[in-house]
Amino acid sequence: MMKEIAEQPEALRRTLKAERAHAEEFKGLARARNFRLIVLVARGTSDNAAQFGRYLFELTTGIPVSLAAPSVHTLYHAHLNLRDALVVGISQSGEGTDINRVLASARRQGAYTVGITNEARSTTAHVVEDVFLVRAGKQHSVAATKTYTGQLMVLYLLASALSPQITLGAISEIPHRVRETLRLSGEVRELVERYRYMRQCVVVGRGINYANAYELALKLMETCYVVAERFSSADFLHGPIALIERDFPVLIFMPPGKTFRDLSRLADRLRMLRAETVVISSAGVRLPASTRAIRVPGLLPEIYTPIPYIVPGQLFAAHLAAVKGLDPDKPRSLQIVTRTV
Amino acid sequence: MMKEIAEQPEALRRTLKAERAHAEEFKGLARARNFRLIVLVARGTSDNAAQFGRYLFELTTGIPVSLAAPSVHTLYHAHLNLRDALVVGISQSGEGTDINRVLASARRQGAYTVGITNEARSTTAHVVEDVFLVRAGKQHSVAATKTYTGQLMVLYLLASALSPQITLGAISEIPHRVRETLRLSGEVRELVERYRYMRQCVVVGRGINYANAYELALKLMETCYVVAERFSSADFLHGPIALIERDFPVLIFMPPGKTFRDLSRLADRLRMLRAETVVISSAGVRLPASTRAIRVPGLLPEIYTPIPYIVPGQLFAAHLAAVKGLDPDKPRSLQIVTRTV
Repeated sequence: MMKEIAEQPEALRRTLKAERAHAEEFKGLARARNFRLIVLVARGTSDNAAQFGRYLFELTTGIPVSLAAPSVHTLYHAHLNLRDALVVGISQSGEGTDINRVLASARRQGAYTVGITNEARSTTAHVVEDVFLVRAGKQHSVAATKTYTGQLMVLYLLASALSPQITLGAISEIPHRVRETLRLSGEVRELVERYRYMRQCVVVGRGINYANAYELALKLMETCYVVAERFSSADFLHGPIALIERDFPVLIFMPPGKTFRDLSRLADRLRMLRAETVVISSAGVRLPASTRAIRVPGLLPEIYTPIPYIVPGQLFAAHLAAVKGLDPDKPRSLQIVTRTV
Repeated sequence: MMKEIAEQPEALRRTLKAERAHAEEFKGLARARNFRLIVLVARGTSDNAAQFGRYLFELTTGIPVSLAAPSVHTLYHAHLNLRDALVVGISQSGEGTDINRVLASARRQGAYTVGITNEARSTTAHVVEDVFLVRAGKQHSVAATKTYTGQLMVLYLLASALSPQITLGAISEIPHRVRETLRLSGEVRELVERYRYMRQCVVVGRGINYANAYELALKLMETCYVVAERFSSADFLHGPIALIERDFPVLIFMPPGKTFRDLSRLADRLRMLRAETVVISSAGVRLPASTRAIRVPGLLPEIYTPIPYIVPGQLFAAHLAAVKGLDPDKPRSLQIVTRTV
């Protein structure tokens, strides 16, 4: 896992280089098709990438987005009217049975289908009309890291084809930012000692970093066996905050931008409840009082923060697994390809 | 909370009686408008009702559904193309600031807006073009129960206007089923003694009962301060199952129907991991081996199970709070109306 985390700058650069011309071509098709709806289909870590895509596309393209419920297609065999829809399936292995069935069925129902996968010869790559490849190299660890950020990168490329708000110039900065952020590794390793006996926690994000809350929680569940809840700050205040008592750990993604004020208020509230808070934010930003802060180097527009911001989360999970004496590459009860319908 | 749980048969009957003609009228409008997309907007318990609506509408109407991300509108001020969309806002109090802002903004963006609320004079009721009232009577407990099932009832009524698959005859059976199910109260009270010291658990549902997994988990978090994760069985197998060790409690909604085989397989897998399982299913159905089973009386087509099936969940949470010596009506850190943007 640690090795694959470290490979990310190179993997992202490779993906960007290999698929940017493809994204340019996709522009023409998108214009001609005039999509009215975007449907994202995925499971597990890829579903967290889809959650990111949901915000990215709605914020930049004005096209409403739906995260597909696979069982609607695979168990209930419902027929949806998907004319004028762009349906994007995301699967690291390309062998998620349910994802592939939804893509095949969406294609029959009139959608234009795109696949995002790490495996060029996979079923996903064959079932869709157009495939974007994540060039992350073979994933060996069961805990996905470089494929998650690779999927986010491809989603940025797709968004750049659908909206002038996302530019290739800005995307090209990301691999370098990830490299800088990897330097936090030593600091995070020292920090996680404190959480050696943490058995449960909450991870909070909002807007474009909401998906990262899901992804960090999933990494903590898979690799550290911590019962990690994930919420948007607004959903959290609508009930689950009742969980919080003195010392309860809450990890918060808090980039500067549109969600900052809202998340700061939550951090203040948590301080009053005497919770333990770990804030992931950017260097130089004035933060509310928190127990610990992890400072991502440099300042990026909020929309481009999710890839660098998940890196300290990945480091946190990988180091914490080590401190707990667990092997993050082989979580109990899991295989790298999970087949569900 | 217990009083409001018990009021549900009457509240559901009242809502059904008061709004069925309205649903009939809505048919004509729906035909004329020819909706291409349904967007559901909600927070907290109402968002769990929206999750139910998502499956209900996709399964019966063939119209794709999107669960809105409020921050897209309220913090980022994005403009979505919502022409030909039906946008349904769900809010018990009708005073959720974010929900009302999304509804107002959706209306400006060309959508037809409907509100579902318990309060006729609320902001939600004024901001939308058409309002369906949940006649649950005043909600006093912070933990929503009768308003949740009332919202589900209204969603059935809306679905009956959009699809011949949902019939008023079948919906009319539901209040009686809820009355029968309430008889489980004594049995559930005895059962929860076993979970006096439960601090964390997982709740699993799939398809049309996926929303109930969210709702039961939320009730356990709010009223019992149990860290309760919620997953579909498929998502659970894609990572979080690594959490499961001997004695870890997993509550499973397992109605007979399309999702039964999938959930049974999960229960078998959990037995191999020596987890503690509590299965909520129908009387007379042959179940996989589980630690405990709660049997909902009678047999209903799967699509009509969610309202009766949440009742044992509500009873479980209310009794467990009592056994833990907590007041479920006034969870710490919560008010009945939560304002977020």
